[in-house]
Amino acid sequence: MKVSELGEFGLIDLLAKMAYRAQDKQSAPWQQLIIGIGDDTAAWYGDTSVQLATTDSLIQDVHFSLATASWNELGWKALAANLSDIAAMGGVPRYALVSLALPGHTEVDDVTALYQGMIDLAQQFEVAIVGGDTSSAPMLAITITVFGSTRSQDKRILTRSAARPGDKVAVTGYLGGAAAGAEMLTRKLQFDPEATASLKDAFLRPYPRIAEGQLLVEQGVKTAIDISDGLISDLSHICKASQVSARIEVDHVPIQPAVKANFGDRALELALSGGEDYELLFTGGAEVIDKVRMVAACPITVIGEIIAGKLGEITLVDSKGNPFNLHKAGWEHFATR
Amino acid sequence: MKVSELGEFGLIDLLAKMAYRAQDKQSAPWQQLIIGIGDDTAAWYGDTSVQLATTDSLIQDVHFSLATASWNELGWKALAANLSDIAAMGGVPRYALVSLALPGHTEVDDVTALYQGMIDLAQQFEVAIVGGDTSSAPMLAITITVFGSTRSQDKRILTRSAARPGDKVAVTGYLGGAAAGAEMLTRKLQFDPEATASLKDAFLRPYPRIAEGQLLVEQGVKTAIDISDGLISDLSHICKASQVSARIEVDHVPIQPAVKANFGDRALELALSGGEDYELLFTGGAEVIDKVRMVAACPITVIGEIIAGKLGEITLVDSKGNPFNLHKAGWEHFATR
Repeated sequence: MKVSELGEFGLIDLLAKMAYRAQDKQSAPWQQLIIGIGDDTAAWYGDTSVQLATTDSLIQDVHFSLATASWNELGWKALAANLSDIAAMGGVPRYALVSLALPGHTEVDDVTALYQGMIDLAQQFEVAIVGGDTSSAPMLAITITVFGSTRSQDKRILTRSAARPGDKVAVTGYLGGAAAGAEMLTRKLQFDPEATASLKDAFLRPYPRIAEGQLLVEQGVKTAIDISDGLISDLSHICKASQVSARIEVDHVPIQPAVKANFGDRALELALSGGEDYELLFTGGAEVIDKVRMVAACPITVIGEIIAGKLGEITLVDSKGNPFNLHKAGWEHFATR
Repeated sequence: MKVSELGEFGLIDLLAKMAYRAQDKQSAPWQQLIIGIGDDTAAWYGDTSVQLATTDSLIQDVHFSLATASWNELGWKALAANLSDIAAMGGVPRYALVSLALPGHTEVDDVTALYQGMIDLAQQFEVAIVGGDTSSAPMLAITITVFGSTRSQDKRILTRSAARPGDKVAVTGYLGGAAAGAEMLTRKLQFDPEATASLKDAFLRPYPRIAEGQLLVEQGVKTAIDISDGLISDLSHICKASQVSARIEVDHVPIQPAVKANFGDRALELALSGGEDYELLFTGGAEVIDKVRMVAACPITVIGEIIAGKLGEITLVDSKGNPFNLHKAGWEHFATR
């Protein structure tokens, strides 16, 4: 069988099982492990905090195109994707290792611009870039590993597996901007300057929700994920890990204003399935979510709730609680991954 | 300027300076940092030990060819290169994240064979494979990040920068096997079965010197590096970082027996410059080295000494202490990197 037939998630499942079976469960690393393969971030017990590590690759013409992103933007985005994985655990990012593969004919100025983009974001979160690797390759590939932890003396983390029926489902910020920005740049769509800038930033300069992730932990939230694959897909990851289902009220989904204004009927689809918004999706009791909303500096929107039911299934409903018809909304080609 | 004109080490220097200048030196990650960009492994203070992190990429047709290495061997070697970087700090490897980029038409069985090769080695050192990333790409690229630490309550590490004039220079094991093995496989050279097997293993199944690295720390050695670029090149890294020079007695260099037997005049060249042997190169006072030799399970050979003199320069001498003529030995095309 080819990898393309098995799919990314199928391959990860297979490799996770191999790695799991092979472990000596009595060894120290295994005894201290909290979260292994299959989550976006690995977590293990340190002496006074939980240690976190995550890695993500951006590959030219697979994850990005130099036709729509500058080198500086790529550097920012590659690090942002990793920091977002730390945010989804409620952690503090600390150190980054950067592995660059690139053709020998690459301009040094382009590489320094890429690095500057990473540094610009790293500085915002006091992340130290402390090592890496450079290799020759036929195309550009950026692999970043970020090492972080919970705050000292605090071993609480956010996981995918703690959602319970009755929990409210909430998100930070607005959705759909990144996918709309990608489409705008790829298809050379023309919007007013403000919308153009906000969609471009949503796609190329996502701002990881580090502060919000830590705030969720503080307020007692236990379940979160960052929206990298898309709202439906990422909520389905939570539901599978927690062995529950979820219902989303589509009218409550906070669509990014520039997407709503410019993408008509497709705005909701972009918000539900677009991905790469790097907002946090989380669940918790109504009182906990209310407390989060009181103290968060960004919008917090309740979009549905966790229910018992068919494991991992996401149901969409309209304002009257009736099933929302995906087909009429032109949505069926986005399968839940 | 193109990256190929600046070279890998020039590029790393440039990026290291950018990252260094940009750091907020008062931030916690920076305050706790011991070793940043430019070394093979980053190191920072944890609560009761020093934390270590290293990353290395193997890229198809740059670092390896599927014509000379099986998928299983690639998995082993990719992890071995990373574990060797932890060995060079005297550390204990603990967790690995694996980032795979590969074409969709790759056979799933090949990917599982690659993973099995990693698992086989990971098990030997109780390393837990706890996460990673898979991406589509035009060719195979394996990027592994390994996290480790010193042993609990022990904050000693081996560095490149502690060599002092008068130190002896020593190596573990034998050299030249990996480069000879690569040449044997690429040029389809025919040797007797025992030599063939030992050269192939040296190239494709290097065994990282984890136990020996920890033993060096215990015995009071302060300076080490693993031989990945080649003896001369890696010794030159130590000399530059320590601001010293070194003299190597070429007759004492422990050439792998199968290399000596089959590569004639070129055996020494392969041992001095071949690289990828993943042996440890270290320096220390004669008494310290003697103690190491008493307790090590592998051969320990003194091959020269650290001297004052032109910073970073490596001098080769013959058994009479006369300068060894590189040109006559057909060696000049291997510039010190």
